[in-house]
Amino acid sequence: MNLRWTVHELRLHHPFTIARGSSMTRRVVVTELEHDGIVGRGEAAPIARYGETVESVLHFLSTFDLSRFPDPFALDAVLGAADAHHAGNAAAKTAIDLALHDWIGQRVGLPLWKYWGLDPASAPVTSFTIGIDAPEIVEQKVREAEGFSILKIKLGGEDDRAIIRAVRRATDRLIRVDANEGWKKKEDAVEKIRWLEQEGVEFVEQPMPAEDIAATAWVRDRVTMPLIADENSLRLHDVPGLMGAFDGINIKLMKCTGLREAHRMIATARACRMKVMIGCMIETSVGITAAAHLTPLLDYADLDGNLLIENDPFVGVRVENGRLILPDHPGLGVHPRD
Amino acid sequence: MNLRWTVHELRLHHPFTIARGSSMTRRVVVTELEHDGIVGRGEAAPIARYGETVESVLHFLSTFDLSRFPDPFALDAVLGAADAHHAGNAAAKTAIDLALHDWIGQRVGLPLWKYWGLDPASAPVTSFTIGIDAPEIVEQKVREAEGFSILKIKLGGEDDRAIIRAVRRATDRLIRVDANEGWKKKEDAVEKIRWLEQEGVEFVEQPMPAEDIAATAWVRDRVTMPLIADENSLRLHDVPGLMGAFDGINIKLMKCTGLREAHRMIATARACRMKVMIGCMIETSVGITAAAHLTPLLDYADLDGNLLIENDPFVGVRVENGRLILPDHPGLGVHPRD
Repeated sequence: MNLRWTVHELRLHHPFTIARGSSMTRRVVVTELEHDGIVGRGEAAPIARYGETVESVLHFLSTFDLSRFPDPFALDAVLGAADAHHAGNAAAKTAIDLALHDWIGQRVGLPLWKYWGLDPASAPVTSFTIGIDAPEIVEQKVREAEGFSILKIKLGGEDDRAIIRAVRRATDRLIRVDANEGWKKKEDAVEKIRWLEQEGVEFVEQPMPAEDIAATAWVRDRVTMPLIADENSLRLHDVPGLMGAFDGINIKLMKCTGLREAHRMIATARACRMKVMIGCMIETSVGITAAAHLTPLLDYADLDGNLLIENDPFVGVRVENGRLILPDHPGLGVHPRD
Repeated sequence: MNLRWTVHELRLHHPFTIARGSSMTRRVVVTELEHDGIVGRGEAAPIARYGETVESVLHFLSTFDLSRFPDPFALDAVLGAADAHHAGNAAAKTAIDLALHDWIGQRVGLPLWKYWGLDPASAPVTSFTIGIDAPEIVEQKVREAEGFSILKIKLGGEDDRAIIRAVRRATDRLIRVDANEGWKKKEDAVEKIRWLEQEGVEFVEQPMPAEDIAATAWVRDRVTMPLIADENSLRLHDVPGLMGAFDGINIKLMKCTGLREAHRMIATARACRMKVMIGCMIETSVGITAAAHLTPLLDYADLDGNLLIENDPFVGVRVENGRLILPDHPGLGVHPRD
């Protein structure tokens, strides 16, 4: 097998704000696995919080020798070796996992949802995320997102109540909240969640820092709103330990190493009677479409990362009134935009 | 889709002894799903302990209307409906699950291990089971099983020590023990397991009754030998609750409703850092081959159910010196013996 890759600079519709500043562009790596006349595509959207950069992705891909594996069907052998190649590097591993899956789906002539035995009509509606901003800008963004029946509102700072009030001035749509580990004291988390319960919020993601699982369990005992793990549910082995602290998990391909481990996390969360959501980073339609193929298995989807990009190089899953329309084409069903 | 079925009466090489008596025959139901010119096969080996008989299997199959589903690829939709059709009936559900998988594998031209991304060279050696019997007969059976490098010895009665001594007179091969819930007092279980630790036993299956999970955890704290759940690990939702009481699980297709749920149980057990074994009932090569396709994912295999049959109507997985040779043919890779 032969893997090649391209760095894409994605221009964003709105500045992307993180703790360290804001930017109008994001860089991702798109992989192409060519074998036996078929090209499978994958993507790595590296996450700074976990030590990944475009450069670390390129280093991983250029030092992992895929040519010693003769067959893309051998997912366990290839992905096991990739996982053992270096610790971390989840986005780089995802770029390999996605390319293999896309290749296999094309080889057997089935879209991935069908390859996995899923019903595309079971795909949930996706939410659209509203980032942290001044309340008046949040209000404006909510009005612009009228095509989406579910909004995910980022909180976690001092302005939380003002932000929710701004959202509610603009809409009575269903909202979900992502606190992104922002509430440091468990008493504050309980107070904010009880207030959110009055504001028609469906659930809250990651209210407390990931290292505070016991505090999260303490919070959960005092609220009725479901708590969904995000920074706490990176990989398969994280899931069983979340029982009692969370009601569900958010899976991101770029954190869990890809579709194969995502399947195993979903099975485990179901065994633990937990809800399952899938989220994303800012990714092209390669990564977002891969995640979308899993959604018939899931309760919640938050797959808007490609919608934030002006120059998405690919076309794949479509969104119609928030509904995810999964491709009928084999593999990921993604092709370059021309 | 169109499903038909046949009852097969299997003649056994040796009498099959259960609590209520012994028999030289067992009856199973083999299903055939015909669609689009392809025939997929499945099997139900009903388990009396869980209220199933050949008649209950036939009742389930004749009342579950498969013709309303247009596509065998829709595993989640079909198997979800089958699971909801009646409670229990795991073997009947397995007969549908296996036939769908066999059909899909044939349709895409891949043996199931390849369809699932597995490496057939990772399949573990299978053990051969020696049932409860008088010590001198046990000794004789052990000598006859010389083709197998691992033996599984059934215990759980008054004669346990005499049986193990009889085994050890005949062989120094690796042995595993299945207590089948036979040890009712936790102190007795600890004493027997500590004795077995001296006799070169690798692990013990289901030492205590399934309802005594807390007692099993108490036993586990006092022994070094791994404890593997069997009657405690019937289906997916059983698995997370076994952490702390068991070191691993035994999966049987006829108890868990088939390959799809078995995959989910394996993922969950791995998330819980538990070992995974696959076992069987007395089944034709249809059921045994289906289980064999999963073995590259597993630590231990105990797939000897077809070897106990004089008139196995099918040919599939082969065993060479205990090694499972998975078929290279599409689907289950099983065909009628002629």
